[in-house]
Amino acid sequence: MNGKKASSLDLEDRGLLYGDGLFETIAVLDGTPQYFDEHLRRLEKGCQKLGITSPDQILLQQEAFSLCKGKDRVVLKIIITRGKGGRGYNPSACREPSRILSLYDWPDYPADNAEKGVCVRYCETRLPENPTLAGIKHLNRLDQVLARAEWNDPAIAEGLMLNFSGHVIEGTMSNLFVIQEGVLMTPDLSACGIEGIMRSIVLETASRQGIEYRTCELSPQALMEADEIFITNSLIGIWPVRQIEQQQYHVGDITMRMMTIIQ
Amino acid sequence: MNGKKASSLDLEDRGLLYGDGLFETIAVLDGTPQYFDEHLRRLEKGCQKLGITSPDQILLQQEAFSLCKGKDRVVLKIIITRGKGGRGYNPSACREPSRILSLYDWPDYPADNAEKGVCVRYCETRLPENPTLAGIKHLNRLDQVLARAEWNDPAIAEGLMLNFSGHVIEGTMSNLFVIQEGVLMTPDLSACGIEGIMRSIVLETASRQGIEYRTCELSPQALMEADEIFITNSLIGIWPVRQIEQQQYHVGDITMRMMTIIQ
Repeated sequence: MNGKKASSLDLEDRGLLYGDGLFETIAVLDGTPQYFDEHLRRLEKGCQKLGITSPDQILLQQEAFSLCKGKDRVVLKIIITRGKGGRGYNPSACREPSRILSLYDWPDYPADNAEKGVCVRYCETRLPENPTLAGIKHLNRLDQVLARAEWNDPAIAEGLMLNFSGHVIEGTMSNLFVIQEGVLMTPDLSACGIEGIMRSIVLETASRQGIEYRTCELSPQALMEADEIFITNSLIGIWPVRQIEQQQYHVGDITMRMMTIIQ
Repeated sequence: MNGKKASSLDLEDRGLLYGDGLFETIAVLDGTPQYFDEHLRRLEKGCQKLGITSPDQILLQQEAFSLCKGKDRVVLKIIITRGKGGRGYNPSACREPSRILSLYDWPDYPADNAEKGVCVRYCETRLPENPTLAGIKHLNRLDQVLARAEWNDPAIAEGLMLNFSGHVIEGTMSNLFVIQEGVLMTPDLSACGIEGIMRSIVLETASRQGIEYRTCELSPQALMEADEIFITNSLIGIWPVRQIEQQQYHVGDITMRMMTIIQ
């Protein structure tokens, strides 16, 4: 934390008091945080949106790479909060953001998830539309927590969340891609949802590979009619979806092509 | 924290990681937390909504009264988080909620605020509609932080927040009451906003006093046409509003009656 070894946070830090901050979850392979520049850019964008002073990029990079040195397949989590500034919502007394880097064990995902695909459900918890905060990975994550608390069946790998208009936005921890007639589609996230780093990598890859793609509104009905579906995040990479509720899917050509290129 | 003196929180506490918790802000006068039972009831309701084990009410009361003993005009803040349970949104591994009680200095509000009324502005930051989380005082407070960051003029005591449909919901730190033709109105909070303890005290008082009241949708236009306006929270009690943007109001009969009974 702020360049020093620590296991605790000041009780007056606004990260705790108001969820006043941002985070990044980064895959570390062979000592190297993956897509680190992309994560830094999103963090920077989030800091701008929240009016938090961005951390020094070179310092953050040094700390991250130093912490990850010699580590293989771990998770690096970076949290930036607005720091301390007294009680009350007014952030004007805050001077020093808090910078927290932590390593976690790699999650124990079944190997089948990537190879054969995953089963997914729909969550009842909806995502509220809030363009001000949409896209960035801020610390106000009660919607995701409540959605993820809806099931405990380990055979269900992810839950999809709708907005209050009934459109599918994303998974609790992943972004969603739907392929129909050769076109790659992913929900528009201008009003809610998190713009995942792996999501942007998939869209860039589609662009480079000449695969037609678009961001749009997607209904559960559109998912029923899809040829292929996959989900993405920085740790899982790409997981094909083989089942949503009762509907089955096969692992299709575009999904496999993306997995070959990106993983 | 959890019955022991502490100044810091474990970095893995979900209060920090996801804003996964609740809080109460309580006025302490002459050693006694005010409306303590009402605050406990709201905390309990919040715990139920979030699926967090409620703290032992007797223990919490003992700790609160013991901490406040001999203190006059201070602020007691209670935070309950889901505690620790590893990385990831799934809360099923969480066993022990964290219980944090802190005392803060009484805020330095000008005496004129209660006597002559306050100037209020409209915020640009909107409140998203989210019936799942509406009403409770959870730790996901970025909307309020961004709204409060919009102004620094000390002459403006509060900012009013609209929902995305353009209805007025509440202040950044207060609930709103509008009086027209003898009827007391306050925004409906079933889709967003915090159900303040002082708000419920005002509504109960209106009921007991035979003042007609209702919760409803209120537009900025309705506020323009109001006879009296006041705002409430547990620390300020009741502040009359004497100006919203360019519109002036006088401190009216019902406002003064409420202030006399409640304060």
